[in-house]
Amino acid sequence: MNSSSAIPSTKPIHVGAVIFDQFELLDCYGPLEMFGLLDQDARITVVAETMGAIRSAAGPCGMADAAMADAGGFDVLLIPGGIGTRTAMANAPFMAELKRLAEASRIVASVCTGSLLLAKTGLLDGRKATSNKRVFQLVAGHAPAVNWIAQARWVEDGKYFTSSGVSAGMDMALAVIAKLRDRDKALEIASRAEYDWHADSSWDPFASATV
Amino acid sequence: MNSSSAIPSTKPIHVGAVIFDQFELLDCYGPLEMFGLLDQDARITVVAETMGAIRSAAGPCGMADAAMADAGGFDVLLIPGGIGTRTAMANAPFMAELKRLAEASRIVASVCTGSLLLAKTGLLDGRKATSNKRVFQLVAGHAPAVNWIAQARWVEDGKYFTSSGVSAGMDMALAVIAKLRDRDKALEIASRAEYDWHADSSWDPFASATV
Repeated sequence: MNSSSAIPSTKPIHVGAVIFDQFELLDCYGPLEMFGLLDQDARITVVAETMGAIRSAAGPCGMADAAMADAGGFDVLLIPGGIGTRTAMANAPFMAELKRLAEASRIVASVCTGSLLLAKTGLLDGRKATSNKRVFQLVAGHAPAVNWIAQARWVEDGKYFTSSGVSAGMDMALAVIAKLRDRDKALEIASRAEYDWHADSSWDPFASATV
Repeated sequence: MNSSSAIPSTKPIHVGAVIFDQFELLDCYGPLEMFGLLDQDARITVVAETMGAIRSAAGPCGMADAAMADAGGFDVLLIPGGIGTRTAMANAPFMAELKRLAEASRIVASVCTGSLLLAKTGLLDGRKATSNKRVFQLVAGHAPAVNWIAQARWVEDGKYFTSSGVSAGMDMALAVIAKLRDRDKALEIASRAEYDWHADSSWDPFASATV
């Protein structure tokens, strides 16, 4: 499961982010900020069911550079959450493409209720994972074959990273960078972003809000 | 200068974010996430010189819902930074629109090198402000009439809020929410975003990187 560590350090990390109607802004753009600060060492592609503008839960639109069907696997597939996950999980063609991209990608990283989408593909069955703490039982109820971890900023199991709610995606993204490059690079990026990285995956003061 | 506190609490806060070629993703979407979590109590409009897709420094495009020239003032005008500020500050029509929108808005909040743009309008002259710590002297050199504060997560002076680099915009946005609503609402939003709010504006471990 450690194929990720075989990515040559001379080849830029190709990050693909999947967006969908009513995705959560920071789930997507927080991690992309961190990867973007790798400069020439990363390339970012935003994908959706169709190319073009996709409205977030907060209102502003993101832009998909490509249709999911036209994308291959990525070094890192990022799956944000948001209220739109409830509609997306019932969209069979979207879910089929998501599963294909997740299987074809070296690392799959979900943020917040993005883990609901990832879990519904079945790829997390038997694996440890986490999610947003305010809708934790709802998410867990949709995918009982997953070993849901109630207290964790993020969880790593094989090639799958799943983070807690919204802001936790940035902490997880830095952990992915530390894995694909090294901890010094992740610390450098956190400093450039003036970001107070919670580098301990067990740090989770929001677990007490679990319902 | 406290007209902001006169916004009736029953009227949604209208937030306008200005984007431009090569803006920094998190400078924009971090604060917009926090305002977005006000749900029906906020409305967000993204503006740019022209409507449509605008490429960020990291690659992904944002979408402007309207042209700046077609916008009036906002309750909160958000000005992100990014490497594109160097080109934008030399774009006279853009800067004229930015100044007009800043003058017409109740609160103006810049993130990172967004303070370079705001300072170049002249509206910060004689006021306290801060900026990204890694390009602090460069920014300060462009606007010597501003009282630049080298150690601050964000600075509030009259209707102007200016934050330190990238991630600091989220801390500042929560402070703006605390000002326009109350501290409990800001704490609630930080919790929903599972965000570790640095609520002390003097907290700034990144000041030591000032060059």
